[in-house]
Amino acid sequence: MDMKLIVPDMLRRYVPILSWAAEYSGRTLAGDLTAAVIVTIMLIPQSLAYALLVGLPPQVGLYASMAPLVLYAIFGTSRALAVGPVAVASLMTAAAAGQVAAQGTPEYLGAAIVLAMIAGLMLVAMGALRLGFLANFLSHPVISGFITAAAVQIAAGQVAPLLGIRAHGESLLDLLVSLVPNLVKINPYTAAIGLASLAFLFWVRSSLKPLLLRIGLGERPADFLAKMGPAMAIVVTIAVVWSFRLDARGVGILGSVPQNLPKLALPPFDAALWTKVLVAAPLICIVGYVESISVALTLAAKRRQRVDPDQELIALGVADIGAAVSGGFPVAGALSRSVVNFEAGAQTPAAGAFTAVGVALATVFLTPLLFFLPKAVLGAIIIVAVLSLVDLGALKRTFHYSRAYFAAMAATILLTWAEGVEAGLVAGVALSIFLHLYGTSKPHVAVVGQIPGTAHFRNVKRHNVVTDPEILSLRVDESLYFPNARFLEDLINEAVAANPAVRHVILECPAVNTIDASALESLEAINHRLKDGGISFHLSEVKGPIMDRLKRSHFLEEMTGKVHLTQYDAVASINPELARRTLEAKKI
Amino acid sequence: MDMKLIVPDMLRRYVPILSWAAEYSGRTLAGDLTAAVIVTIMLIPQSLAYALLVGLPPQVGLYASMAPLVLYAIFGTSRALAVGPVAVASLMTAAAAGQVAAQGTPEYLGAAIVLAMIAGLMLVAMGALRLGFLANFLSHPVISGFITAAAVQIAAGQVAPLLGIRAHGESLLDLLVSLVPNLVKINPYTAAIGLASLAFLFWVRSSLKPLLLRIGLGERPADFLAKMGPAMAIVVTIAVVWSFRLDARGVGILGSVPQNLPKLALPPFDAALWTKVLVAAPLICIVGYVESISVALTLAAKRRQRVDPDQELIALGVADIGAAVSGGFPVAGALSRSVVNFEAGAQTPAAGAFTAVGVALATVFLTPLLFFLPKAVLGAIIIVAVLSLVDLGALKRTFHYSRAYFAAMAATILLTWAEGVEAGLVAGVALSIFLHLYGTSKPHVAVVGQIPGTAHFRNVKRHNVVTDPEILSLRVDESLYFPNARFLEDLINEAVAANPAVRHVILECPAVNTIDASALESLEAINHRLKDGGISFHLSEVKGPIMDRLKRSHFLEEMTGKVHLTQYDAVASINPELARRTLEAKKI
Repeated sequence: MDMKLIVPDMLRRYVPILSWAAEYSGRTLAGDLTAAVIVTIMLIPQSLAYALLVGLPPQVGLYASMAPLVLYAIFGTSRALAVGPVAVASLMTAAAAGQVAAQGTPEYLGAAIVLAMIAGLMLVAMGALRLGFLANFLSHPVISGFITAAAVQIAAGQVAPLLGIRAHGESLLDLLVSLVPNLVKINPYTAAIGLASLAFLFWVRSSLKPLLLRIGLGERPADFLAKMGPAMAIVVTIAVVWSFRLDARGVGILGSVPQNLPKLALPPFDAALWTKVLVAAPLICIVGYVESISVALTLAAKRRQRVDPDQELIALGVADIGAAVSGGFPVAGALSRSVVNFEAGAQTPAAGAFTAVGVALATVFLTPLLFFLPKAVLGAIIIVAVLSLVDLGALKRTFHYSRAYFAAMAATILLTWAEGVEAGLVAGVALSIFLHLYGTSKPHVAVVGQIPGTAHFRNVKRHNVVTDPEILSLRVDESLYFPNARFLEDLINEAVAANPAVRHVILECPAVNTIDASALESLEAINHRLKDGGISFHLSEVKGPIMDRLKRSHFLEEMTGKVHLTQYDAVASINPELARRTLEAKKI
Repeated sequence: MDMKLIVPDMLRRYVPILSWAAEYSGRTLAGDLTAAVIVTIMLIPQSLAYALLVGLPPQVGLYASMAPLVLYAIFGTSRALAVGPVAVASLMTAAAAGQVAAQGTPEYLGAAIVLAMIAGLMLVAMGALRLGFLANFLSHPVISGFITAAAVQIAAGQVAPLLGIRAHGESLLDLLVSLVPNLVKINPYTAAIGLASLAFLFWVRSSLKPLLLRIGLGERPADFLAKMGPAMAIVVTIAVVWSFRLDARGVGILGSVPQNLPKLALPPFDAALWTKVLVAAPLICIVGYVESISVALTLAAKRRQRVDPDQELIALGVADIGAAVSGGFPVAGALSRSVVNFEAGAQTPAAGAFTAVGVALATVFLTPLLFFLPKAVLGAIIIVAVLSLVDLGALKRTFHYSRAYFAAMAATILLTWAEGVEAGLVAGVALSIFLHLYGTSKPHVAVVGQIPGTAHFRNVKRHNVVTDPEILSLRVDESLYFPNARFLEDLINEAVAANPAVRHVILECPAVNTIDASALESLEAINHRLKDGGISFHLSEVKGPIMDRLKRSHFLEEMTGKVHLTQYDAVASINPELARRTLEAKKI
């Protein structure tokens, strides 16, 4: 029996697994399982590394890689998105939790869990209320600048573990200040392992695949072996540390990781704590969402699949809540793992659930083998992973396209480095809103006249046109709303004062998509003032929806002039003789 | 010799007196003097009343009515604007100063002076940098809601002095809470004077002018006598209090006001104080500016005079600085006095300077006569003056035109009453920016097809049009920028997933006035994703300035399709056969 007939539409919209589970087949299972195995091998070192990046015990990273993945499989609409711990959200979590408690304390872990909870609840609420557009407030230049800044900061933060020294700071500036004096305390064994791993991972990234192809491996196996670099580095360095007992020489190792699965528990309900992280939570959830939806849309387009942005809010929110109740920290869709998941053949979100099973099995059976894992390798893995997030091309492109938005981008980056992630993001959002309002506050306005031999009106500065000194025709190339409402008042005051002959003003509105309440008041003021000066005020080429709206006000009744269908009609209603003569004139 | 030839243009732009002083004549002088006398009679009680409203000694109001007026006469471009203490700025000053010090302390006066200084410096900076558009952030519904709320709150605040009791509160709510329990302590003499004055002033306002007209007075003298109501009330009540020595019965009187002119002094430079009022100052200066420029433009239009909004920022800024260095508080252009000034025949800003002389003379010679002036009368004068600022019509109009902006207006009013003026204004500004971004975040997009017998393309839902299942033509009726950038990505992902036959997507852009850096990234993402799905991406009817801008990016090179001049060209380049056949078909 067709599942679609039994399950109500509403339920299927909010629980997409009900749609695709019915069509699940052996072929889909094979693809999902293959992808899950490969993603699991990538995810285990990353989840440990990101937990250490946040400043949490390593098992918390594993916990954040189980429940959230299963929940996303149930609620997600992307068939390839790989959810779990990600670099930028980890950095933001560290910054926010650091404001509440010291690393290593139970309060610090509590803050990370509460952040996941609040971020999750916010995302679910945004999804249910269809407030996904809020994510738009992070303009492209701001988000891409922020991610570049965060990636550099994360990489810089891993220099200390890589070299076996200590450094701490919430902003890049603080970090460097705390790092430099400690450089003399480098542990040579740690540094050797760290730098060798880093060199190896860079080599794997840039040269292993071509090499494998040259020795005759197929495209796909070569690709996937190249993704296994971190796993290889881990196996080799564990062997080295264990063989030479380098832990006795000061090489920091992972140590014992609890082998149990996460216990379900509600996050600490502490009003003071919740209030303290209330600013950070929306930033974490929106940055995570924006990154996730962008990966999801890109991958979906390759197979012409649908992704529902509102449902994605709910799915990522439930995943975060899942992280919170199972002792994890905020998660999101990961760029690199999603691409691997997609290319390894993931067919449905079930691949994510299988990955969670893989992580669970590894937690129970594999963690003892990781006892001697040097932390420096995890640092190297993070550095290589995040440097792919640095997008200098975006800086260059934005610089060429718009200096203003480049300024917003640069401000976001510099403030993130100088003051921390929250300051950078908030400033970026504020600046882009400001730039947008500024941009629309001085719209292009042209004085227009009639082109001889036609009923067309064009800019008097660019065309040879006919005008009547008693008629001032202005074309506004922008919607009319509060950022530019007063601009129009000033402009018309100026134009009328400068042209004493004018008896009629016509506003041509072909590019006016909205007239908001402020602009309406301005139009009323303009009409009023022109009336006091003995001048009539007309509109032409007003769009249908705007006319409908204007009819709900008293403006049309109070208008001294009329609303004309075309600019030609407007001029012809005032000076029919001139309009007709120009229309019939020979074209120049 | 023509003054215009000697004075450089730059100087004349920033010091408008250099332009009009050269043409000053006896006739202009007569008009200016008449207006000055009448405005002075209005201004003296108002300046005392507003000083008491702020919570300052009465002479501070007189000081704010001298230097600022002279300075505005030098730098202002409006020929009718009457500058000085105004109700709303006074309320805002009281709220801001109240956060720094207690009323009656020298620190409180210092805070008011510093507020005037900062507001003045900000206005001058905004004028010099041509940042007048910042005032637009106060959308019409917000400013009009705020002024209505402030007026009601000011009137409520005068109930206590009117009845001879005490009450204090920064928000309307606090005020009422503190007022009600004191109602039992009413002083009957004060209340009698206050209520009688109030009734008299209301009667003057509504009925005196018609009465005078009926007994044969001309229109203008009747009008001006009606404006003299407050002065008459003052004379009569002073006589009553003095005759019956009501001050001994608990009627609060003005007492002795120092007869000296203000001493020039720099405001206190106290970093902590400056920081504390740094949020309030921009709000005060912008609200004052918006009100002033609106009055100035309205009056200028009646005589087709020019007002330069950028220079007005400088002029009002210098006026505020003048208030600060002469011991006054923030000033602005007053609605009622400006109208009187204009109607009484003010021809140039010199009328303001003459008014200042009038106030100075009154300060030196007249203040002893005001010793017995009951404060209750000043309360009545304020109540009658501010109630004309209450604009319930604007509430109604906005409600009918736009529920969303009505919500912003209502929020501004309610928050002003509940939390105070700053909270109300800030919330209003934030809400209107939010509403604007929300409004443009979901633009109108239509799927279009060709109308048979024409090269026109229209909405498939509204017209009988021809479409090719392989071509998806979308018309966007909005500029493309960050609030709606991702909307377009989602929309196209959705449309393409729903129509598997589609091989070409054409975006028709006749109403796209901007493509910002975010939208460009979105177009690039769309192009990329469509390419992955084997679909080509075209644009049509892109405006000139936007094309110029796109040429500075790599988008046009990377595009899988082309940019076409018209939508017909776009379709014809893909399916020439169908386009031509439809063009030649009979119209339906």
